[in-house]
Amino acid sequence: MAQTRAVRTRATIVRAAGELFGERGYHGASTTDILERCGLTRGALYFHFPSKEAIADAVVDHQAQALSAPERESPLQATIALTFAYADSLLRDPVMRGAVRLAVEQGTYRKPDAAPYEGPQEAVLGLFLQAEARGELLTTADPHAIARLMVAAFTGVQLVSDALTGRGDLMERLTDLWRYLLPGIANPGLLPHLRVPDLDS
Amino acid sequence: MAQTRAVRTRATIVRAAGELFGERGYHGASTTDILERCGLTRGALYFHFPSKEAIADAVVDHQAQALSAPERESPLQATIALTFAYADSLLRDPVMRGAVRLAVEQGTYRKPDAAPYEGPQEAVLGLFLQAEARGELLTTADPHAIARLMVAAFTGVQLVSDALTGRGDLMERLTDLWRYLLPGIANPGLLPHLRVPDLDS
Repeated sequence: MAQTRAVRTRATIVRAAGELFGERGYHGASTTDILERCGLTRGALYFHFPSKEAIADAVVDHQAQALSAPERESPLQATIALTFAYADSLLRDPVMRGAVRLAVEQGTYRKPDAAPYEGPQEAVLGLFLQAEARGELLTTADPHAIARLMVAAFTGVQLVSDALTGRGDLMERLTDLWRYLLPGIANPGLLPHLRVPDLDS
Repeated sequence: MAQTRAVRTRATIVRAAGELFGERGYHGASTTDILERCGLTRGALYFHFPSKEAIADAVVDHQAQALSAPERESPLQATIALTFAYADSLLRDPVMRGAVRLAVEQGTYRKPDAAPYEGPQEAVLGLFLQAEARGELLTTADPHAIARLMVAAFTGVQLVSDALTGRGDLMERLTDLWRYLLPGIANPGLLPHLRVPDLDS
């Protein structure tokens, strides 16, 4: 029972901090702001997190929940679906927006670090390797190179979409990314069968 | 003579500020840090810039110098060359790195703003429209959509390259971006004639 409450309290802190970091960036949100938003005492906060930096790390880790690929027959289709599900969670979940903003601006709270990109890269690479094994990729497409490219291009697409339209055109931009990239990576026979966009909801 | 010195002083401030913003972000660099680095008095600084925000704006404007396309026979080849020249200036010029970091993190010093993306987008769109007129693009490639995509993807590529390798793999990543994107945008007859990477130096 006590543990359940502790888990819930921790989640409350991460949610409030994620919202605030997403809205204001790391420097724009103090621990006092976080406490005010979640209605907890400073003691409760420091019981769960030794520092503001540790809260930010927990917010960044939150993106892992958006990295399990939706079930699809084709691994390449599953990759497409994964990116649209991730984009969808960015639109729906303020903690995801906080996680992504901290990743992009992470130099502002600690040294640049590979961690926030490793999870997405591994998820996408795993799917591209399956796609390669199934003959879904062009033989000229290197799964490692296109996984790296997809994560970087997606990062830029969501960032610029946020700056220019508050992510209002995110889905349209992501559709374009796949539309123009697929001819360079997918087996031409597969192209007419791929669905872009691909969203469950 | 006095004006020449004023121009030079202004450039000294922008250079010092650009370096510092590139290294530490907007919040990590104070006007005192900027003064220390350029060896000027506070009076001299405020003669040129009313605020730290105004200095940041001048640093962001600095990227315009990297947006004139190198001369090439083919507009599509000129687009490729432009992106490599821009990447090269990121590697060589610390003020460019400051400009790009402020653009990416601009929400931290003022509201998100289209300005830093407008210049690159116009430059790339102008070239893609020429490429379309010359029959260099696939008829399925919309110049507006691919200009928007190129600017966003480039933004992400340089950002993730910076976070993971301090931009050590920037040229390799940019080469991959073009390599995998060209089949979706360029006339197939042109493909074997395009040079990637394309750098003057």
